[in-house]
Amino acid sequence: MKLIRYGEPNKEKTGVIMNDVLYDTSAFGEDYNEQFFETDGLARLQQFLAEREGKLEKVPENTRLGSPVARPSKIVCIGLNYADHAKETGAALPPEPVIFMKSTSSLVGPNDEIMLPKGSVKTDWEVELAFVMGKRASYVEEAEAMDYVAGYCLHNDVSEREFQLERNGTWDKGKGCDTFAPLGPFLATTDEVEDVDNLRLWLKVNGETMQDGTTANFIFKIPYLVSYVSQFMTLLPGDVISTGTPAGVGLGMKPPLYLKTGDVVELGIDGLGTSRQQVKAYAKS
Amino acid sequence: MKLIRYGEPNKEKTGVIMNDVLYDTSAFGEDYNEQFFETDGLARLQQFLAEREGKLEKVPENTRLGSPVARPSKIVCIGLNYADHAKETGAALPPEPVIFMKSTSSLVGPNDEIMLPKGSVKTDWEVELAFVMGKRASYVEEAEAMDYVAGYCLHNDVSEREFQLERNGTWDKGKGCDTFAPLGPFLATTDEVEDVDNLRLWLKVNGETMQDGTTANFIFKIPYLVSYVSQFMTLLPGDVISTGTPAGVGLGMKPPLYLKTGDVVELGIDGLGTSRQQVKAYAKS
Repeated sequence: MKLIRYGEPNKEKTGVIMNDVLYDTSAFGEDYNEQFFETDGLARLQQFLAEREGKLEKVPENTRLGSPVARPSKIVCIGLNYADHAKETGAALPPEPVIFMKSTSSLVGPNDEIMLPKGSVKTDWEVELAFVMGKRASYVEEAEAMDYVAGYCLHNDVSEREFQLERNGTWDKGKGCDTFAPLGPFLATTDEVEDVDNLRLWLKVNGETMQDGTTANFIFKIPYLVSYVSQFMTLLPGDVISTGTPAGVGLGMKPPLYLKTGDVVELGIDGLGTSRQQVKAYAKS
Repeated sequence: MKLIRYGEPNKEKTGVIMNDVLYDTSAFGEDYNEQFFETDGLARLQQFLAEREGKLEKVPENTRLGSPVARPSKIVCIGLNYADHAKETGAALPPEPVIFMKSTSSLVGPNDEIMLPKGSVKTDWEVELAFVMGKRASYVEEAEAMDYVAGYCLHNDVSEREFQLERNGTWDKGKGCDTFAPLGPFLATTDEVEDVDNLRLWLKVNGETMQDGTTANFIFKIPYLVSYVSQFMTLLPGDVISTGTPAGVGLGMKPPLYLKTGDVVELGIDGLGTSRQQVKAYAKS
């Protein structure tokens, strides 16, 4: 299945994509949140779709998409998980995964605007494959890890490099600003993706390709990451884990290149769709 | 007011403390969560208490206390906010606050057990004054910051130093393990505390005083912290911000001293009560 959430911010309705058509699933009566995943919501949703075959309403055209999952308990990110990206940032290859967290208030829809924080001069992009937990996970074995994963989605791990690296640590300071986590367009359940370790992912700024990588270059693969992170904290159903970015971020350019008002960021991953964010200056909401 | 939550884990009921007596407020019909604070819950609760004066049921004796606030969207912590603690850890005085995040799955009641993570040999204590946000805060001015704070509570920012400092960053890895955020016993609204910048805070392990500090030694005071953190992320109603710990943590001892199974940690802050956690070995729940 491909799950979507659509409509006004904070009032999103749920839906699914079938044969490239967006359908409303509001009648299912549940948001795609912690409780949904915890109570076997994916299987129940599939049953619902089978019962309603041919009877679902289409989502109105040009509707805004929200994050495909409701605000999770946490967004955990893996740093430096592609050798080429570690090299461009000047970091050594990590002996074990780097973990940091994004404030969940940074979550937005896939095509929402990215807002430059006040005073920001180093806002950067990072195309990433994120996965969503389907079950509570604590000290999970690598061999069983995939039983705990609900699905995958596209994520732009937007990062303010000055806040992240030059403002007296930790990285969290530059990762959780409002609008810094455009997620989606959809959550693809694991069965929708044939080989998650061989997906092309790319990102363009104003039409120019900046990142063009493949998940074949993961240093640490998803089962290992599930197992690893679950040694340090309990992952809850619906939690989002982002797996790191390949080479080509602004920080790695010579000289570095950062986002400015009016820029357009487009990104995509094979089988997980594309997203597009326009960059705007800080504006009090 | 002094707010409590009590009863079985994840099924807590709400209550208040008046004249040292614990009363049930379940009839108020709301948990002390984001929506409660966002919709002026404190004022509505006060009204409820006035209407029910003398008619509230007492909480049964020896009832477990939960965290005084429901699981927040985030727990943001300030590192090295007391000069004496910065010195003992060998860190330089921070030119601006250090920010890190605790996984919200680490939240437990004030007298729950602390569980040593699997393989942990460096689990440490940190008595801290935490504050709870009463309103959504983004780019708040220092002069107005206290309007955004709902109240204060006692927090033990339990920390695994090897995970935090020796496992390839960031600090988040050693801060968010299950049971690592005993909060409470109660949330004291700001009017209950005469001078938050002059409170003694202390912590004992097995009866021996380890930390004995005062919030008079804050490097960065609460209004500054509200304003500062709100530059990097939007704070939501009910979010918990912990203000750092004074000297006397295990990491700073010569040689370092860490918690082991059976140890008893007791801590307190003037006017914010005391808490007590027994340390147990990892056990799969």
